[in-house]
Amino acid sequence: MDSTLTWSQVRERLSPDASGLVAAIAQQWDTGEVLMLAWMNEEALRRTLESGRATYWSRSRGEYWVKGETSGNLQLVKSVHLDCDGDALLISVDQTGVACHTGTRTCFDVGVIAANSADATSPSQAEGSIR
Amino acid sequence: MDSTLTWSQVRERLSPDASGLVAAIAQQWDTGEVLMLAWMNEEALRRTLESGRATYWSRSRGEYWVKGETSGNLQLVKSVHLDCDGDALLISVDQTGVACHTGTRTCFDVGVIAANSADATSPSQAEGSIR
Repeated sequence: MDSTLTWSQVRERLSPDASGLVAAIAQQWDTGEVLMLAWMNEEALRRTLESGRATYWSRSRGEYWVKGETSGNLQLVKSVHLDCDGDALLISVDQTGVACHTGTRTCFDVGVIAANSADATSPSQAEGSIR
Repeated sequence: MDSTLTWSQVRERLSPDASGLVAAIAQQWDTGEVLMLAWMNEEALRRTLESGRATYWSRSRGEYWVKGETSGNLQLVKSVHLDCDGDALLISVDQTGVACHTGTRTCFDVGVIAANSADATSPSQAEGSIR
C-alpha cells in the first residue's frame, strides 16, 4: 500500500520550518513505543538514509548528531515515512538500549499529565474525560 | 511507574519554541499506530486536558482546532505524556475514523522514503541499511 518516494519527490514534499527543520518521531519498529522526538534537516535525513543510523540536527548545539554515537544506544533505521504535509517524519527504528539521555527507555517516561490538572478550580468537569 | 505531573509542574517543564509551540504526537492507544503530528501551545494543552478531546494550534490558520470537529474524526484522549526536555507531548488517543485529512488512517501513509534514494550515485552503499 505504501508507495515509495524517490529523493526528488521527498525534496519536493518536504516543508521545513523557518529553521529548515522537520520533526522526526522515532518509533520502536516491533513494539510501537514512541521513543523520542528530534529534528532533521534535509542533510540529516540524507545521512540517516545513507547510513541506516538515525541522524538528527541538534537545535541546542547547532550540529548533526548520530543518535547513540557516544552512548552506544544507536537507532538502526527500518523505514522512514513522510507525512501528508511534509513537516514530519516517522522513523521506524530498532533502538539499542535506552532512547533517553536520562536513562529511561523513552523520552516520554518523565510523567503523565493529570487529566484534571489544567483546571484545579473545577476538577469534576475534567474528571472522567481522560482515563 | 509513571509519576503524575501537576499543572504547575507541567508549566514549569514546558519548553516551547519561539512561537510558543510544542510538538504533539497523536498515537492510537491500543494499536500503537502513530497517527499524526500537530502543535500545541499551553492553552491548547489545557483545552485538551479539560475536554478530553485533542485540541491543537493550527500554525497555518492561526487558530485552535478540535481534531474532528468538522469531520467527526475526533481523538478521545486517554493520556498525555510530556517528554524529558519539555518540547514534545505524546497524546494517547482513541481515533474515530481516519486521522488524516487526505482520508488515510494516519498522516504517514503518504509513502515510504526509499533507503537508497538519497544517494543515487552509490545505491549499493545504502542498500541493505534500511528494510
